[in-house]
Amino acid sequence: MPLTGKTRIHTLIGSPIAQVLAPGWLTERMKAADYDGLLVPLHIEKGNLDTALPVLKAMPNIDSILITLPHKFGAIAHCDRLSGRARLLGAINAMRREEDGRWFGDNFDGAGLAAGVKKAGHAIKGKSVFMVGAGGAGSSIAVSMLEEGAHHLTFHDINTINQGMLFEKLSSAYPGKVSIGSVVPAGCDIVVNATSAGLEKGDPLPIDVCQLAPHMVVADVITDPIPTRLLAEASKIGCATRDGTHMLDGQIELLFSFMLRRS
Amino acid sequence: MPLTGKTRIHTLIGSPIAQVLAPGWLTERMKAADYDGLLVPLHIEKGNLDTALPVLKAMPNIDSILITLPHKFGAIAHCDRLSGRARLLGAINAMRREEDGRWFGDNFDGAGLAAGVKKAGHAIKGKSVFMVGAGGAGSSIAVSMLEEGAHHLTFHDINTINQGMLFEKLSSAYPGKVSIGSVVPAGCDIVVNATSAGLEKGDPLPIDVCQLAPHMVVADVITDPIPTRLLAEASKIGCATRDGTHMLDGQIELLFSFMLRRS
Repeated sequence: MPLTGKTRIHTLIGSPIAQVLAPGWLTERMKAADYDGLLVPLHIEKGNLDTALPVLKAMPNIDSILITLPHKFGAIAHCDRLSGRARLLGAINAMRREEDGRWFGDNFDGAGLAAGVKKAGHAIKGKSVFMVGAGGAGSSIAVSMLEEGAHHLTFHDINTINQGMLFEKLSSAYPGKVSIGSVVPAGCDIVVNATSAGLEKGDPLPIDVCQLAPHMVVADVITDPIPTRLLAEASKIGCATRDGTHMLDGQIELLFSFMLRRS
Repeated sequence: MPLTGKTRIHTLIGSPIAQVLAPGWLTERMKAADYDGLLVPLHIEKGNLDTALPVLKAMPNIDSILITLPHKFGAIAHCDRLSGRARLLGAINAMRREEDGRWFGDNFDGAGLAAGVKKAGHAIKGKSVFMVGAGGAGSSIAVSMLEEGAHHLTFHDINTINQGMLFEKLSSAYPGKVSIGSVVPAGCDIVVNATSAGLEKGDPLPIDVCQLAPHMVVADVITDPIPTRLLAEASKIGCATRDGTHMLDGQIELLFSFMLRRS
């Protein structure tokens, strides 16, 4: 499909931008759907968000804007409407122009991991989840697990401020469903690493693997290396595993539908 | 070449934008040169140029900005430096970030036609040129013909204000080289239509074809239809002809080198 002035433009903003892979993946996904569109990476530096977003929103051939660090929080102010989870999280990674011209923001980071788990045939509804990491990714994953009907979520972060803030948000939206705890609970079904431990070779394991049991599904947000040491150890024990690329893959489909207003 | 966060972004701004073809052509040209880049069409409405251009210029992964109507005049104010012809014309159709971070503007509209004429083996240096149309395209073509060393340029526009303005600009930069006249001069070598006459079926011919002689090269800026009635009549007489696509084709190569800072 040749690029022309009729091609619909979608953008991904962030700083830095060189590391992003979504432009290629989502543009390929559009091509596969015979949709004449393009996801363009745009490097918008930290202080420039509030001048840049109104300019992008005013371009009639831009349909959606994906958002990566450091703009996930700041972009909220440029939306006219938010999904429930975006409001709860105070952060978005996608916004689109609605038919009425308003901009709607949502957050698919956690939904991508949930979709990846389900795609591999593992239920979330009714299950017990343990997660380490309560930063941006962890918060979004926590909300998605509860949205998907998880029976209970236990989580932990060594940053007790993040831990406390997430607990407050979740326990008001999902009362009785959330606990703080650093040990994988006995009857737990799904274990998630949402910390960066595993990115570097010498990193400690984010979870004591002796706490894992073969029936558990272990998921990690890290995309490089694959598998992380956590997932390699979990595999040895007999756990099913989901790595960071499964999370991204799950999110691509959700983002694609969102950007094209098909969901 | 997959689109990633490392892909260098070039943009083409205008309003409307649906009609532009350069994004596909120049992106293909980049691919052919094994250069990881993309020319993205961005629809910037008339009143938004002065807020939008600073935002685009501040994105570190944007290397150049091509400019079509209605922004060719307004974009000048956003350049730090201009080519001589851009200064003379008061209009640009391309700007790029230089190595020192400043933005340099140039105008390739006319140079594209000149390149197309030369590419077909016809000299411009020392030749006598007749042109109708003194709007944006005509002005740029006039300057390029004189830059290429045309011996003399005679031109005409039914809009006497445009005609007078262009005559004033050209005769101060190229004294003695320019005349106003509505008849193809006897010894003329190159004849150019830079008006829109020929776009529509019922349009009158922009030049009385009885004034043409077989040794003349006749060029037209119109890209649709091809050939225009003027070029069809000129061919019958035995003239060599160059249509609007040759002008665009000539400009693509010039723009490509400019955008990649190879010229």
